[in-house]
Parts: sequence; structure tokens; C-alpha cells
Amino acid sequence: MPHFRVVLVEPLNDGNIGAVARSMKNLGLEELVLVRPCAVGEEALKRAMHGIDVLKAARTVFSDEEAFKGVDFVAATSGVDTLNDKKFVRISLTPREFSEKAKGLEGTVALLFGREDFGLPDELIKRADFLVTIPANRSYPIMNLSHAATIVFYELFQTGFEKWKPKSVGEVETEKLHEYFAELLEVIDYPSHKKEKTKVMFRRLMARSVPSTWEYHTMMGVLDGAIDRGKKIEPSSRRRGKKTS
Amino acid sequence: MPHFRVVLVEPLNDGNIGAVARSMKNLGLEELVLVRPCAVGEEALKRAMHGIDVLKAARTVFSDEEAFKGVDFVAATSGVDTLNDKKFVRISLTPREFSEKAKGLEGTVALLFGREDFGLPDELIKRADFLVTIPANRSYPIMNLSHAATIVFYELFQTGFEKWKPKSVGEVETEKLHEYFAELLEVIDYPSHKKEKTKVMFRRLMARSVPSTWEYHTMMGVLDGAIDRGKKIEPSSRRRGKKTS
Repeated sequence: MPHFRVVLVEPLNDGNIGAVARSMKNLGLEELVLVRPCAVGEEALKRAMHGIDVLKAARTVFSDEEAFKGVDFVAATSGVDTLNDKKFVRISLTPREFSEKAKGLEGTVALLFGREDFGLPDELIKRADFLVTIPANRSYPIMNLSHAATIVFYELFQTGFEKWKPKSVGEVETEKLHEYFAELLEVIDYPSHKKEKTKVMFRRLMARSVPSTWEYHTMMGVLDGAIDRGKKIEPSSRRRGKKTS
Repeated sequence: MPHFRVVLVEPLNDGNIGAVARSMKNLGLEELVLVRPCAVGEEALKRAMHGIDVLKAARTVFSDEEAFKGVDFVAATSGVDTLNDKKFVRISLTPREFSEKAKGLEGTVALLFGREDFGLPDELIKRADFLVTIPANRSYPIMNLSHAATIVFYELFQTGFEKWKPKSVGEVETEKLHEYFAELLEVIDYPSHKKEKTKVMFRRLMARSVPSTWEYHTMMGVLDGAIDRGKKIEPSSRRRGKKTS
């Protein structure tokens, strides 16, 4: 299993922070980062119980970037699922599916949980390699923060034992792959209004696959070849359908 | 699935009662019975959120017998597991194993949760048909009451739940995607000796991702664009690195 960093983004209730620390201790997680949290007081200490050491070791940061430092993969959680397959930004894994995928990852995985009232902001959800939603009652799916977190931790804990997996690639390679993909879209004059969506689609597709190092290099070779080819055409002939002859 | 009755035996903290009511609502359970509970006040109401109707409909009873009236099976929960197979009273199922068993039951199943400090008394554990323990950190397995309850509810919900999935593509589309990919390799003069391996790599990568229809069409668009671009180059200039000028 990779290392997991639990990141609470703007928690509003310090009781929840304490409860999350306790659950982390119960389920074998250690690193807690708080992004712009509420004040952490008595209620947090009380609810942390024997998770007090997790709570005391928690780092408080004020920018998202600091929370992501050293992170290879990002998993965002959301209480809101979609039934529309064009809203792929919102297409999610169950905690169990995510745990299965997570087994194959190496490095540090940030588990992001949003604030109690609005959840995570869209920009953090778009940035995530994995989106995790707990299947729940459609008429009232929004769970308490610490309960939702506990279910995710529980699934990760259950998935503890692992088979050997090919080494997966890290963040630097992943970003390079997405840079190349973005460049390909440029080169082929992919319609501007679809670019962002297509890039996010490709990111999610790749994340679900957890490419091995070898698969990564192979994909890079293909993208590189396609970009290289595309660039050799004169600008005037590049828009699709406008043949030069 | 049978009908489930959630029974909290002597809960000491009304915040936990409210939190359990909320989780029940989140995870599709309705009947809550409180056996000799603490006073249920503001904190319970606050934490119940939209589970307020579950909380308000909760019955308070003063004997165990009243809680068991109309019950066909009893499942007790305990944070303490045993590694000693002679202590069979303490040999337990995981929440997942229990949920699998529960599917096959008919009638009413009572889910018993004990008080925050001591858990359930031995006589209730002995009386239970099933004992459920959440696999957790051996050095600190005791979870908060509402968190433990939430995990059990979650597993029961998952067992009955069919996850909505974006429609995945069929064989015809899948083959078309791989045809396009193969064509792209041709067009970019991908080295012949690597072609087969790369095609298999792409096939496996896509299979692991299980693309939705929409993702499929988007990928087809990208591949088509790249092929189209590549074809516009004169054959003599097509080998990578051999610029025509």
C-alpha cells in the first residue's frame, strides 16, 4: 500500500477533526493535514481519545499547495454522485473500488475531505486523480465528515494485504504524460471549447488504469510520435477537413 | 434483505445517538430503539441533521426484553476480538461477512451496539446469533460508537446496492478504438518491432479503465484527429527526425 495523507480542507467543526484523528488511529493512518481549519480546541481533544497523538502531530497549512507537497496521487471525496456520464468530472469510484486501485499505487496518496457544508471546491475535484463517493441513500446521501472519512479509512484498512503489482509511475511522469496529451490536442487543433473536458477525461481514464512504468513510457512514445507528426504540417493545412490541395 | 432494528444499549452520549440517527438515514435504516439511554437533548438534535425523523421516531425502552420484541435474529457488535479460538463466544464476523449472511435472513434482525465505555455486557453477546467486530488497529481497535455503527450500516447498504455505472462500450466500439490506435501507429511510423507490444499495452490499459460511451467517443475524436494530421505529411518526410527541409 502507498502512504496515505489525510487532508481536511477547511473543516468547520473541531469535534469532527478530533473524531477523524481517532478513526485514523483505529484504522492505521498517521498523517493528518488541516487546510485553513477552524480553531482546534477542547472538543477536538475530547473526541480524539487515543488518537490524540495523530491530532497533535497534525500540520496546519494555509494553501492547498502546501497540503499537496510530496503527494503523488490525489483522491477527492464527494457526497454528490452523478447519473450523467457526460459529467465525467463527477463520475466516481466507491471506497471499495478506490481501495482496490490504491493497492497498486506507490508513493504518497492524499485523501481529501471537504468542509461540512459545501464539500470540496470544484477546482480540487478537477485536480484529483480519483474521485470517491460513498454509495448512500439517494434522498439524503450527505454524511457527517468524520463518518465519511471513517468509511474510506475502513475500506483502505480492509485492503491491507497485497499481491505484487508492477511499479506504478509517480507524479512527475503522470504530469508529463498529461502535458504531452495537452500538446497533442494543440497540434491537432482540437476544438478549444472541448479541450478542458477532454484533458480531465484523459486524466481520469489514466488514473483508473494505474499505468506501470513501462506502459507509461510506451504511451509517451505514441503521444510524442503523434505530436511530432502533427507539427510537420503547415499551419494553413492544419485545420481538419481543410485539405491544402 | 431482512428488516433491521438498530438497538443502542445504554448510550452515554446523546451526540452519538444523533450521529447514529443521521447515519441510519444516510444508509437507508429507519428503526431505532434506545435501551436505558442518557437524556436526549440539543446535541442529539444537532448531530442528527436530516436524520431527525429517525431520532424522533426512536423508541426508548427500559428492559432488554422490550428491545427484542418481534426480533428474529440478534447481531451483537464488539470492538474486542479474540485470537484465541477457544474463546468461541468472542469469535466474530467482519461487517462484510455479516452482511453477506444477513442477505439470506428473513424477518427482523436487531443490530446491538453497547455503551461507549464498556461495550455490550457478556450476557447480550452470548445471546446474539451473530457477533460482529470491525477489523482495526490491534493497538487501538475501539472505535467511536457512531463510527462503528456507520461501518456496519455501510456494509449492509453495499450488499443491497447496485451501483450506477456509466454505460460502458461494447465489443464493436472497443475494436474500432483499437483499429484507430493501430492506424495511428502506422501513420506515425511507429517502429515495427514494437507495434504488437504497444497495441497489446493499449488494449490492456483501456480494458482496465472500462471507458464509458462518452469517454470512448472522446478518445476516438482525439485518435482520429491525430491520424488525420499525420496523413497530411508527405511519405518522404514521415519518418521521425527526417525533416524535409
